[in-house]
Amino acid sequence: MGRTSDARAKILDAARSLIELRGYSALGVAEICKTAGVPKGSFYYFFDSKEALALAVLDEQWSAQRGDWDRVLRSDQEPMSRLRQLFEETAAAQRAGQETCGTVSGCMFGNLTLELSNQTEAVRRRLQEIFEAQVDMVEEVVAAAVERGDARVADARDAARAVVAQLEGQVLFAKLYNSTAQLDVLWLNCLALLGAQAPAADVVGS
Amino acid sequence: MGRTSDARAKILDAARSLIELRGYSALGVAEICKTAGVPKGSFYYFFDSKEALALAVLDEQWSAQRGDWDRVLRSDQEPMSRLRQLFEETAAAQRAGQETCGTVSGCMFGNLTLELSNQTEAVRRRLQEIFEAQVDMVEEVVAAAVERGDARVADARDAARAVVAQLEGQVLFAKLYNSTAQLDVLWLNCLALLGAQAPAADVVGS
Repeated sequence: MGRTSDARAKILDAARSLIELRGYSALGVAEICKTAGVPKGSFYYFFDSKEALALAVLDEQWSAQRGDWDRVLRSDQEPMSRLRQLFEETAAAQRAGQETCGTVSGCMFGNLTLELSNQTEAVRRRLQEIFEAQVDMVEEVVAAAVERGDARVADARDAARAVVAQLEGQVLFAKLYNSTAQLDVLWLNCLALLGAQAPAADVVGS
Repeated sequence: MGRTSDARAKILDAARSLIELRGYSALGVAEICKTAGVPKGSFYYFFDSKEALALAVLDEQWSAQRGDWDRVLRSDQEPMSRLRQLFEETAAAQRAGQETCGTVSGCMFGNLTLELSNQTEAVRRRLQEIFEAQVDMVEEVVAAAVERGDARVADARDAARAVVAQLEGQVLFAKLYNSTAQLDVLWLNCLALLGAQAPAADVVGS
């Protein structure tokens, strides 16, 4: 069982790396297995199809990222400071990826949304669930900021979606220019979108 | 010469439609020629490579879109009204695409940025030029709005980039949900990003 689980994990790791480098459509099962160092036969032991693999890669990626978002967005800091930390950690993750593989790989969820959502309904639905969950988490923080009088928005959900949209758009630019400097503006744009001021702690600290 | 030019135009049309449906990586030259109804041999008469075709498709798409952006963003309307019209026309174009092919195809430039910018430097550079030109055009309008006292931003270029990033992010959501309703928020988010009020003409008209 130990060895079998290893093979599944190796396939998932290889698929994630290859998808980050070249997207999903360009990949074949043979290449994924070769990169994973597992026999091609074992692929279909674990996955019914390449689509099933894509869903598993998304689940694994979101499971890890959701943990990070939870830690940051549900911390005991002031609501606006939590959002600032989310952007800082996003930029740090993109910088780390760039140091490892030479290029800013962007957001896997954004990448696969634009590549795949019109091609497979199962992937579209999974990506919808992931982005809904992201917007839910940001909305909670926006509502808390509004309640404290730190932000002023017409609709907390629309505002949360605008923050996530801005994040996806700026990560797109970071990938386009292969530069994480694009991400420095996220915080100021978030303040503008939420009609908010920088928290007192940040102003003193900056 | 008439017939030859037709073949090139047919290849470009077929490539654009296929790229919108399924992205670039999944396409082969044979399929493009079959869809275009031209012999495969003629492909390499017009294009050195699939990458050369991608660049030609981008140029053609941007040439058409730049004309639309020029007409809207350099009109004699108030600056903020020009931006509003840009969002309305963007939403209308996505709705028209959805009516034609059943799905919101999104922004070809955003789609190809996420799919290809880490794979081909020539495509990355062309997409950078296109997005720089978009940001230039929006920046002109932002600067005009600031000059009139209709908007208040720390940096006109950063603000213009934030507006384009928000557009790309919301178009991503429109594609994800196959719904152009996602685009209704663009105007309010733009007002927030630019620290602006709706123009008097819009308030009266709404």
